[in-house]
Amino acid sequence: MFELTTIDELQQTIDDFLSRSIEADTDQTLLHSAMQYSVAAGGKRLRPALTLRVIQALQRDNFDLEKYLKAASALELLHTYSLIHDDLPAMDNDDLRRGMPTNHKKFGDAIAILAGDGLLTLAFQWLVDNPLNDQVTRNLTLQLSHYAGPAGMVAGQVIDISNEGSQLTYPELQNLHLKKTGALIEYATQAGGIMAGATAEQQALLLSFGRHYGLAFQIFDDLMDQTSTTEQMGKAVHKDAVEEKNTYPGLFGIDGTKDKLSAVIKDAKADLEKLSAISPIKKTDFDDFLAYFKI
Amino acid sequence: MFELTTIDELQQTIDDFLSRSIEADTDQTLLHSAMQYSVAAGGKRLRPALTLRVIQALQRDNFDLEKYLKAASALELLHTYSLIHDDLPAMDNDDLRRGMPTNHKKFGDAIAILAGDGLLTLAFQWLVDNPLNDQVTRNLTLQLSHYAGPAGMVAGQVIDISNEGSQLTYPELQNLHLKKTGALIEYATQAGGIMAGATAEQQALLLSFGRHYGLAFQIFDDLMDQTSTTEQMGKAVHKDAVEEKNTYPGLFGIDGTKDKLSAVIKDAKADLEKLSAISPIKKTDFDDFLAYFKI
Repeated sequence: MFELTTIDELQQTIDDFLSRSIEADTDQTLLHSAMQYSVAAGGKRLRPALTLRVIQALQRDNFDLEKYLKAASALELLHTYSLIHDDLPAMDNDDLRRGMPTNHKKFGDAIAILAGDGLLTLAFQWLVDNPLNDQVTRNLTLQLSHYAGPAGMVAGQVIDISNEGSQLTYPELQNLHLKKTGALIEYATQAGGIMAGATAEQQALLLSFGRHYGLAFQIFDDLMDQTSTTEQMGKAVHKDAVEEKNTYPGLFGIDGTKDKLSAVIKDAKADLEKLSAISPIKKTDFDDFLAYFKI
Repeated sequence: MFELTTIDELQQTIDDFLSRSIEADTDQTLLHSAMQYSVAAGGKRLRPALTLRVIQALQRDNFDLEKYLKAASALELLHTYSLIHDDLPAMDNDDLRRGMPTNHKKFGDAIAILAGDGLLTLAFQWLVDNPLNDQVTRNLTLQLSHYAGPAGMVAGQVIDISNEGSQLTYPELQNLHLKKTGALIEYATQAGGIMAGATAEQQALLLSFGRHYGLAFQIFDDLMDQTSTTEQMGKAVHKDAVEEKNTYPGLFGIDGTKDKLSAVIKDAKADLEKLSAISPIKKTDFDDFLAYFKI
C-alpha cells in the first residue's frame, strides 16, 4: 500500500544532501565554512520538504525523490541566505539563531553578507543544474526570482524594517507577511506543482494552499515569539514588542491571534479538499505539515 | 557597409532600458528608489555592452539588439549589486561612488543590503524572462550562477577582504582578480557567445579574450587608484594603500604595472586575431573597448 515519505524522512534526506553538496561549489575555505555553518545549523527544512511532498502527493508511487532533490534543496539555500542577512546588526541584529551564534557573530559582518550573497546565487545554480528539462527549469527559475526578489521576499523585508515603530493596519500587515514569509512558502508549493506537471487549475489551488500555509506559519511564529522561551526557540524571544515590530498579537491579542490561526488552517484544509477533487492529492496528505502549528 | 554599433550607442541603449525597466519589477517604493538610485548612477555599462558587442561581432548585419537587451542588461544589475555590497561599512566602507553618496550613505545600511539582494535576484529574473529559447536561457543562468557565485565573484570578494594587510604572491593576486573582477567580465563574453550560438572553439577563445580583458581592467583600476584624483574617479582614491589591499602597483610598482597592462592587452589582441580566423569576428572589432585602458 502506498505511503507518503514522512516529514522526518524528508528532512533527513534534505539534511544529507545539503551537507554533502555545498563543499563542491566553492574552493574558498572561509566562504565555504560560513555558508556551511548556517545551512548545517538545521531547522525543519520545511520549504524543500513541502515542495517534495507536493510532488509526491501528485505522483504517488511514481515519485522519484532523487530527481527533484537538488532543485527542492535550492529553497533551503535561499531561506538560509535570508536568515543570515535578516540577523545582521544593520537589520534585526540577532545574536542567536537555532541555539547557536548567528553567522555574523561567528564570522563577522562582511563574511556574513558574502555568505548570504553566495547562498542566494548558489540557489539559482542548484535550480538550474539538475536533471529536470529546460522548460521546467526556466519556469522554476522565473518563479523563484519573482517570489524571492524585489516583488516578493526582499520587498517584504523592506516593509518590515521601514515600518518598525509605526502601527500597520491589518491589510498592511497581511501584505507584509505575504511577502516576507509567505512568498517563499507559496513558491515551495508552486515549485512542486511545476516539477510534477500540475495543471493550471491544480496550480491555482496549490497557490492558495501555499498562501494559507504561509500565513499560518507567520501567525504561529508571532505567537511563539510572545509565548515561548529562548531555550525553546533557539533564538531571542519577545523581541517583536521591544523593536515595535508589527505582529498579529500586537493587533489582535493572544486569543484573537489563536482564532486567526485556526481560521487560516481551516482555509488551508479547504484548499486540500478542493485539490483532492481534481488531482491525486488526498485531503489528509498534509496533516503532518499542518500539525506543526500546535498551540 | 556594415558598421558596429558604437560603444556610446550601446551605453545609451542600455541606460534607456535600465531606466524604464526596474520600476515594473517592484511596487515597494523605498526598495525601488534604492535600487534605481545605484543603477541610474551610471557607469560605462561595460559588461552588458561587451556582451552585445560579442553578439554583433559574430552575427554582423543580422544582429537584433532588442532581442538580447534584457538578458545583457541583467549583467549591469548584478554588477550594481556587487558595488552596493562592496561599499558597505562592513566591507570597503566607501562614502562615494561615481561622484555620488554610496547607497548606504543615502538609504542606510539595511536598505542598501536589501537593494543589493533585490538587484542580484532581479538579475536572474531578467536573464530568464526574455525572448531567448529555453536551452540558451538555462545555459546563461547556469554560467552566471557559476561566475557570480561562491566559486566566482563572491569568493573573490572574500579573498580580498580576508587578505587585507597580508601580502599575496603574484599567483594569489591573479586568482583574487580573476574571481573578484574577472569573473563577471569573462561571463560577459561567454554570455555573448551563448546567445549568438558560438561553437565550442569560438567560446574557448572568447573566454580567453574575456579573461585578458578582465585582467587589463583590474590592472588599470589599480593604476588609477594610485595616479588619479577623487574628482577624476568619482570615488575615493589612494584607498588601496591605506587599507593594505593587494594590488599590482603594490607588487610591481607603477612602471612594472604599466608593463603588465601592455602585455595583457597584447594577449587580448592575440585572442581576437585567432578568433578572426575561425569566426566572423574581425580583429579590430574591440578596438574601442581596448582603448578604454589609456595610460
